[in-house]
Amino acid sequence: MPHPRLRARAIVDSPTFQWFIIGVIIVNAVVLGLETSPRLIDAFPWLSALGWLTVAVFVVEISMRIYAHGREFFRDPWSLFDLAVVAVALIPASGTLSVLRVLRVLRVLRLLSAVRSMRRVVAALAATIPGMISIGALLVMLIYVAGVMSTQMFSGTDPEHFGDLPTSLLSMFQVMTGDDWAKVIQPVTDEHPAAWLFFIFYILVSTYIVLNLFIAVAVEALEKQHEEHDDEVVEEVEESELAVLAAIESLRAEVSDLRAELADGGR
Amino acid sequence: MPHPRLRARAIVDSPTFQWFIIGVIIVNAVVLGLETSPRLIDAFPWLSALGWLTVAVFVVEISMRIYAHGREFFRDPWSLFDLAVVAVALIPASGTLSVLRVLRVLRVLRLLSAVRSMRRVVAALAATIPGMISIGALLVMLIYVAGVMSTQMFSGTDPEHFGDLPTSLLSMFQVMTGDDWAKVIQPVTDEHPAAWLFFIFYILVSTYIVLNLFIAVAVEALEKQHEEHDDEVVEEVEESELAVLAAIESLRAEVSDLRAELADGGR
Amino acid sequence: MPHPRLRARAIVDSPTFQWFIIGVIIVNAVVLGLETSPRLIDAFPWLSALGWLTVAVFVVEISMRIYAHGREFFRDPWSLFDLAVVAVALIPASGTLSVLRVLRVLRVLRLLSAVRSMRRVVAALAATIPGMISIGALLVMLIYVAGVMSTQMFSGTDPEHFGDLPTSLLSMFQVMTGDDWAKVIQPVTDEHPAAWLFFIFYILVSTYIVLNLFIAVAVEALEKQHEEHDDEVVEEVEESELAVLAAIESLRAEVSDLRAELADGGR
Amino acid sequence: MPHPRLRARAIVDSPTFQWFIIGVIIVNAVVLGLETSPRLIDAFPWLSALGWLTVAVFVVEISMRIYAHGREFFRDPWSLFDLAVVAVALIPASGTLSVLRVLRVLRVLRLLSAVRSMRRVVAALAATIPGMISIGALLVMLIYVAGVMSTQMFSGTDPEHFGDLPTSLLSMFQVMTGDDWAKVIQPVTDEHPAAWLFFIFYILVSTYIVLNLFIAVAVEALEKQHEEHDDEVVEEVEESELAVLAAIESLRAEVSDLRAELADGGR
Repeated sequence: MPHPRLRARAIVDSPTFQWFIIGVIIVNAVVLGLETSPRLIDAFPWLSALGWLTVAVFVVEISMRIYAHGREFFRDPWSLFDLAVVAVALIPASGTLSVLRVLRVLRVLRLLSAVRSMRRVVAALAATIPGMISIGALLVMLIYVAGVMSTQMFSGTDPEHFGDLPTSLLSMFQVMTGDDWAKVIQPVTDEHPAAWLFFIFYILVSTYIVLNLFIAVAVEALEKQHEEHDDEVVEEVEESELAVLAAIESLRAEVSDLRAELADGGR
Repeated sequence: MPHPRLRARAIVDSPTFQWFIIGVIIVNAVVLGLETSPRLIDAFPWLSALGWLTVAVFVVEISMRIYAHGREFFRDPWSLFDLAVVAVALIPASGTLSVLRVLRVLRVLRLLSAVRSMRRVVAALAATIPGMISIGALLVMLIYVAGVMSTQMFSGTDPEHFGDLPTSLLSMFQVMTGDDWAKVIQPVTDEHPAAWLFFIFYILVSTYIVLNLFIAVAVEALEKQHEEHDDEVVEEVEESELAVLAAIESLRAEVSDLRAELADGGR
Repeated sequence: MPHPRLRARAIVDSPTFQWFIIGVIIVNAVVLGLETSPRLIDAFPWLSALGWLTVAVFVVEISMRIYAHGREFFRDPWSLFDLAVVAVALIPASGTLSVLRVLRVLRVLRLLSAVRSMRRVVAALAATIPGMISIGALLVMLIYVAGVMSTQMFSGTDPEHFGDLPTSLLSMFQVMTGDDWAKVIQPVTDEHPAAWLFFIFYILVSTYIVLNLFIAVAVEALEKQHEEHDDEVVEEVEESELAVLAAIESLRAEVSDLRAELADGGR
Repeated sequence: MPHPRLRARAIVDSPTFQWFIIGVIIVNAVVLGLETSPRLIDAFPWLSALGWLTVAVFVVEISMRIYAHGREFFRDPWSLFDLAVVAVALIPASGTLSVLRVLRVLRVLRLLSAVRSMRRVVAALAATIPGMISIGALLVMLIYVAGVMSTQMFSGTDPEHFGDLPTSLLSMFQVMTGDDWAKVIQPVTDEHPAAWLFFIFYILVSTYIVLNLFIAVAVEALEKQHEEHDDEVVEEVEESELAVLAAIESLRAEVSDLRAELADGGR
């Protein structure tokens, strides 16, 4: 009879168990959605109980996985993520901690760790982030410089959008996203027509940097594809080389035979 | 004299017949457009008759195609699509079924199945969908989590945009598309300035996921192009290999001849 | 002494002449811009004279080019374009033809034909259009179908945006560009909440088709680049093949010599 | 004992010194941000002193770098950039020059020259600009032509958006960015319904040119990646060629030996 830890591992790693947990995560997601409506909570008082039941299932599941995998559990970031979002549900969400109640919906994100193809997608998205850091920093600097300049120049003219630095930074972010930018800058440009130059220069430069941020992500994604295709061609070249070398080697064997025969014949 | 089914097949598969049907589809599309105006219906009472005439042509055409192709007709999804959009026209659109009248304009989509290059485009578009499912699911999860959180946090502050879950989901979708997002979140941020963090984080993450969705489609489209180009290079390498091997083989023939001559000479 | 037609050709094809014409086009563009202001026309009465002077230069230039190149002039689409935009200036722009006055600014577009690198860019842009026709037609069909359906369903609820087919088509185009879409559909969704499904489906599908339109253009642009790179690799493979074949040929010469020597020695 | 200039060079080129300067730049950036708030300036009167201290550090640093590198300093554009943004701080910013005070925040951009990876990003962004000039010029021409035409046609109908040429140019730029375009053109289209054609044509063409501008940048970015991958394949082909040639050479040596032996044997 196997060790109980091995049996626990067989259970938690079985597809049936994992599909069951995915089902519970989805039920939990639906319950969390329904619970946003006070009317539905009143109409279906068992909703809350169902919510707590799913949490109980999660607690049992996590406990079993800790028991089954031991230390390895704590080395896998996805397991720690699961542990964290379940633990949030157990903190008494009253008084100053009531903000944590909002975080309970993060349990929906357990789908990311539970479904294998979602893990791959998240890992792929995360892998493109390092390539964006330098351009992202450039963008942050641009917004900061433009925010300080616009506060210095326009805080008197249009306090609603450029009254202080945080407000200016948010206005500059809004202009960068292209949302209603003409309306944001209108109070300023009505008074200082030359301010158009400042804003249009900012729009062109920020759009250009954002574009390059996007292209950096796309190039990263294409890099992997390129490598695979290159590997195919390189493999073909190597195979071709081996075939040619084999043919030359067999020809050399023939010449060697000839040489040996001549040496024999000469004797 | 050929079998009547074969003659029917020759007719329905002839380019003339297919161009005629494309013409009828376009006439039908124009009629459906003109019929949206009660004034035009009054002015040209024969519009409705013309509409029914085109439907009659479609019914005859579909019947002929069913007769000509038999079972194969029902195996081709494009044929079933044609059958469905024509059938909708025949359902009496009164009482509870009057909503079906709206679906009649879908007959315009018969152009997709009737024009060969449109079929290819639709097939190409459909082929890229599987590669988007995982990232699309991630996006749906993000909108759901953000929708639940914003309902919990802001339903009191701004019931117009975040009053209940469906409203919040739609607001979050609107913010994701970048349409008037600053105005959607203003009532909330006026009261809770820290809510900016929540929304800007949401905008950055959702834009990033949408960007990756777009890139996934682009990479899929480039994949095919890459493969074709790789095939060209691989073919060139193989041709080069064959030429070299042929040269070596001819050299080996010469060495073999030499060896044979020596064996002769030695004798 | 050369034929006067050859002398004319030498003049109109000389870089000096072409740079002079580019200068006149720019002066003409500035004059056309300044002439939009009645105040400036009053202040600088010679503006209009300067404008007519540039037109006179264009007339002389075109006449010389027709004399110099003869029939060839009328075979070059760029020349015909130059002729057309200059001819527009000469039509008396009064009465019913006064709308032609607006077209005079198209003379600025002569820069496209006069500057060689602009010609290339325009030709490159035009070359990507055929690849977009099928997807563009799909998009037009989508807007048409959505326009007819929204007119049938919502013309009563919101006549401002969906009152008749042209208005609906424009609203649908606006929704597709993402401009203020939430505000366009609000009157309808306030009355029929289920209309959200229709519009969100439309937004997703139209965005998807537009995305594929953009990708089609990008793939076309990358195609040329790919071909150039492939050509490089193929050339390298061919050079390598030639080098190997030359080495084998030289080896075969050695074997032939050996064979000849043996034949000699055997005699 | 080394020359003092070499010692200065060792100091200014040391990583410790460069990290110290990066720290001072960040402190300076924070101070410049805090100084936008009159309340904070009053609360922390030492802020201004800290700002001047960082400027003093910059002056000493630049002086040391000039002393250490001599003429080379003035040949490096990044060094000249550092010198310029520091010099701006020293100009007395009063009277007509008070606008220069705003430029002080450009000192934050010293991070671009101080951090090596930022220099690379900026150089990479700058390198893609030449490829955009032709398409950018096309876009400027389009906006200019559309601006002149809309002023001529609509200055009477809607002076707010098309009253004079500068206003029209800005409206056309706004329409091109897709920001609230439906609202910009509404006053005109209400009066002249046919104006829709003009604006939709403008939107389609300008979007198409902007798209091609973006694709030009992306293709430029992919070019470098392609070249690297091509180089790998070409290298592989060359290595394969060398291996095959070496094998043929060794075979030729064997044939030569054989020939020599026969010549010996024949003697």
